Amino acid sequence: MIPFELTILGCGSASPAKERNPTAQYLKWADRCFLLDCGEGSQMRMLEYGLKSSRIEHIYITHLHGDHFFGLIGLLTTFGMLKRTAPLKIFGPPGLAAIIELQLELTGSVLSYTLEFITWEPVFAKIFEDEHLEVYTIPLSHRTPTCGYLFQEKPGQRKLIRHKVESLNIPINQLASIKAGADFIGGDGFCHSNATLTEAPRAPRRFAFITDTVYLPNIAPLIGDVDLLYHESTFNNANADKAISTFHSTAEQAASIAASAGAKRLLIGHFSAKLKKDDLGNLLAEATSIFPNTVLAEEGMKLEF
Amino acid sequence: MIPFELTILGCGSASPAKERNPTAQYLKWADRCFLLDCGEGSQMRMLEYGLKSSRIEHIYITHLHGDHFFGLIGLLTTFGMLKRTAPLKIFGPPGLAAIIELQLELTGSVLSYTLEFITWEPVFAKIFEDEHLEVYTIPLSHRTPTCGYLFQEKPGQRKLIRHKVESLNIPINQLASIKAGADFIGGDGFCHSNATLTEAPRAPRRFAFITDTVYLPNIAPLIGDVDLLYHESTFNNANADKAISTFHSTAEQAASIAASAGAKRLLIGHFSAKLKKDDLGNLLAEATSIFPNTVLAEEGMKLEF
Repeated sequence: MIPFELTILGCGSASPAKERNPTAQYLKWADRCFLLDCGEGSQMRMLEYGLKSSRIEHIYITHLHGDHFFGLIGLLTTFGMLKRTAPLKIFGPPGLAAIIELQLELTGSVLSYTLEFITWEPVFAKIFEDEHLEVYTIPLSHRTPTCGYLFQEKPGQRKLIRHKVESLNIPINQLASIKAGADFIGGDGFCHSNATLTEAPRAPRRFAFITDTVYLPNIAPLIGDVDLLYHESTFNNANADKAISTFHSTAEQAASIAASAGAKRLLIGHFSAKLKKDDLGNLLAEATSIFPNTVLAEEGMKLEF
Repeated sequence: MIPFELTILGCGSASPAKERNPTAQYLKWADRCFLLDCGEGSQMRMLEYGLKSSRIEHIYITHLHGDHFFGLIGLLTTFGMLKRTAPLKIFGPPGLAAIIELQLELTGSVLSYTLEFITWEPVFAKIFEDEHLEVYTIPLSHRTPTCGYLFQEKPGQRKLIRHKVESLNIPINQLASIKAGADFIGGDGFCHSNATLTEAPRAPRRFAFITDTVYLPNIAPLIGDVDLLYHESTFNNANADKAISTFHSTAEQAASIAASAGAKRLLIGHFSAKLKKDDLGNLLAEATSIFPNTVLAEEGMKLEF
């Protein structure tokens, strides 16, 4: 199966905490790579974890709070120093391009590659599509325009049932159209329906990246039965009021979104700096009471789905 | 003696290298702290090394290359989140204020403290002075306006020779003026010259922070006999041509500046990412062949002077 995997580069929140980095995740599909948010130090984490930053095709920024993008300018200028030539797309909120462009100008940085900004408005929309993947924005509710992102594979072609193909001696030049759904008419004029010749492809996989947001139940139907839902969980239940006042979520709220969306697995992160390593067990317990298949994000963790 | 000490937060150069951070140094005089450059990740290094970033009174930026200031915006917004109230001065090149102010505006950051930018022109000048310390800019030659900094203590008051004070029974209300240089006229009308009553104070200590620059012999007289000279040493002798083309220095050139300035100790850093840990011994040997009292900078190293 084509590899589809996520590596956590940072799972802290706004105030820096020892041994916890601000938000960034490295998403790999086949040998294509995408970076989700880019907190300060993200490029060093990729070096540390042996991840090739040169492979990154797109960078998706959720919002203009520093713990989600202050590492971006450093990465972009590093690409320049490394003589990158592959074009790079950056998806993000209004204002991001102005911040980056001013810094490129005033630092005298001449990039060796084409940098394209795709600025979204915070609505549900398809913002990228190619033959294999689609990416959607998921509008969130934070103190500044914010979108999460939904990544999904396109459905693959139907799979040929090998012994049927062989027994009917189907000519090789018809296999592509049969994989695409065509029937086959044999030499005897008999029509073999596509359903007897092929099997359904495996279900397309989906990943949602939801940060930062106050508890927002209406995103559940947009996310649907994702294979993996990353949802911010800045606070525990004891600080549920703080979650509301700062437009963040609790672990229990993240679990509730996962449950109502029908997600297969939940990954929680963006932990408040006040939550020490020993507090995270309780945070996890609060989530699993609602949604058992929950995992705590941790720097360097890799998840396949 | 009043503590005067330096901690290395990062001693790498522009391209990130594993386990080597971009430039930043934490300078402490008594309980007053100053930050010299602020490469990406500097705030995390201070957390890691147990250094109080809240104590920083001034930040001195040498030039607008990312490896010297991309960590600044993160630190300034962290100060805001931590509800800092002490005013903060930032000394730096033209353009720095615009970069920071645009980011503060677009991230909706309202700082809890007064931030003052002092923008210099690249000339030798006194840019700060109070009753204890003076700071000078040292103009350097790089691909963008760049200044190093010279920190020096002001001369202390003369020290009273205790047995003289006691034997002459000098009234306590005259001691301050004697420390400041006055003579003492005894009850018998005899004038005791200041030189017989006091000793010279210890020599004021001085530290120079020189990065980034091509080899620039004319800075030696500006630096003078500093107690500690930090001088960038991006390349080894084998890459001396690269040092010229990129406006950097070799370790041997740094040592030559230290020797002609009459520095007491040389600290070298800003190592090229191509210099691995094992290569640094040779780099040090190239420096010590010219200036024996040379030390290699290393992340987390603390030096007193």
